[in-house]
Amino acid sequence: MSEIGEEKIIDYIKKRFPKRNKEISKGIGDDAAVLKNGLIISTDSFYEHIHFKFKYFDMYAVGYHCLSASLSDLAAMGARPIAALISLCLTQRIMTPDIKELYRGFQTLVQRFNFDIAGGDIVQGPGFGLTITVIGQAKKPMMRSGARPGQNLYITNFLGLAETGRIVLDQGLTKKRYPDSVNKHLFPEPNFKDARIIKKFATGCIDTSDGLSTDAHHLAKESKVKIVLEGTHIPIHPEVGMLCALKKIEPIDFILSAGEDFELLFTADDLPKRLKLKIFRIGRIEKGKGVWLSYQNKITPIEQSGYDHLS
Amino acid sequence: MSEIGEEKIIDYIKKRFPKRNKEISKGIGDDAAVLKNGLIISTDSFYEHIHFKFKYFDMYAVGYHCLSASLSDLAAMGARPIAALISLCLTQRIMTPDIKELYRGFQTLVQRFNFDIAGGDIVQGPGFGLTITVIGQAKKPMMRSGARPGQNLYITNFLGLAETGRIVLDQGLTKKRYPDSVNKHLFPEPNFKDARIIKKFATGCIDTSDGLSTDAHHLAKESKVKIVLEGTHIPIHPEVGMLCALKKIEPIDFILSAGEDFELLFTADDLPKRLKLKIFRIGRIEKGKGVWLSYQNKITPIEQSGYDHLS
Repeated sequence: MSEIGEEKIIDYIKKRFPKRNKEISKGIGDDAAVLKNGLIISTDSFYEHIHFKFKYFDMYAVGYHCLSASLSDLAAMGARPIAALISLCLTQRIMTPDIKELYRGFQTLVQRFNFDIAGGDIVQGPGFGLTITVIGQAKKPMMRSGARPGQNLYITNFLGLAETGRIVLDQGLTKKRYPDSVNKHLFPEPNFKDARIIKKFATGCIDTSDGLSTDAHHLAKESKVKIVLEGTHIPIHPEVGMLCALKKIEPIDFILSAGEDFELLFTADDLPKRLKLKIFRIGRIEKGKGVWLSYQNKITPIEQSGYDHLS
Repeated sequence: MSEIGEEKIIDYIKKRFPKRNKEISKGIGDDAAVLKNGLIISTDSFYEHIHFKFKYFDMYAVGYHCLSASLSDLAAMGARPIAALISLCLTQRIMTPDIKELYRGFQTLVQRFNFDIAGGDIVQGPGFGLTITVIGQAKKPMMRSGARPGQNLYITNFLGLAETGRIVLDQGLTKKRYPDSVNKHLFPEPNFKDARIIKKFATGCIDTSDGLSTDAHHLAKESKVKIVLEGTHIPIHPEVGMLCALKKIEPIDFILSAGEDFELLFTADDLPKRLKLKIFRIGRIEKGKGVWLSYQNKITPIEQSGYDHLS
């Protein structure tokens, strides 16, 4: 599959399968499928070695991490979660206590966000993994296609923390020096809290799962606009700065390609006064296409340097 | 996972996750989750080696087979398909033409039954596989829990053909002698056609995916009834009879444990007159529990001998 990337496959599928049913409001191309009655459905797969490693994940964390990542697609659309269906791919190595720990991870989120585990499937397979389908409801979902020229681009938190945490855990760096990062990688949070506030004024929105550059590209492409990231406004968390110094990487470059923070990248015209929300304005929307970085008196085009699931 | 089976895990999950949301009409335990607005959602996973072998499946057949199997859960509830979300788990071995062939298999069914491919996910994983989530709509879904004492048990077609086909293909027997069986294994059909007719009078229904004994056990358990299978009324297809003669197996035993026919096993009081449907009456519903076989003047309890995805 190295010859073509995920996006090319999705473009091929989109072209080959035009929308047929009136019940479908928005299909392939957004964070989730949207039905006309406001029901939103999204599916994500996770496999050992690729998406998590048992070197530093226990089964509770696997359950928590994967279900949070799935729920994040609902948060990105401003939807409330109703149910999840979970398909487990098991191997002989997985024992009953493992399954119970996995479900304990799910349960923490089920109780916090009050939705149902409504079904699933259990099969044997070539490696341990799970596919989670989440179902949510939104009266007026935020879409990737809602960004308009003249708007500002915002992010709900620091970026790069999850990837910093992953590197710290994977390379055995001192965990104590990176507490926020390690926690963000193991236990990311679907940002329903901020989504409830921003959906009143945001027009375009995506969750940052593949890295700022790729996620911004998705927004730009679906909205048919140009996105200019303003380098000096992109906030650098101290832990991200520390890792980048250690690795001698430019923090901006790191953040452009670091995925899995599951924060909300959104566009809006004017922010309401006295907004009870900590957000960062990191760019602007213009007419045109592509993603550009304005930094140190230069404007350069930014390639999709984020995580491609197939590369 | 050999220590516990799929059913025990599902029972554990059901107990641990009681229904929380009013939108959920029926969750874990049936062919699919049912929302109060009549939306029905089901998910199924399929992996190479476990669910299909490239020794005799091409990619077109994989797409057709897996999507048909998934849609069958909707047919079993009398639902009309609206959309499918498809998560692909790819390996380096899978090339662009393979993906196109896979989607050509999906497309045949999309066009025949007029639903949408509304999204999905594409990841790298430990082996080739796919997880399909199907979404359907039914005003009054047929449930596993609808069987009542005094009713008859019916099946919409011969059973055992798909497993006969699988054995023929896997063991390299003469395919020409088993055309119906080979076709049934490679290209099973979701039985929407019969479902549309029987949903007017059927009360309990399940699709035969795990073998007659296991599927009858699901019906009996969810409906809290006893099912008596009448051995002499279970029809034996000539190809199934031929394979059983070759293998020296009792055809009834073979049919009890042979899965993946995706026919409709349903219960009803009185059949409408002049029913335009070829069905077989193969048993009766009584008060009590479990599944029993009435055959050669004996009534014996039947264990769940069908396919357990984890055994």
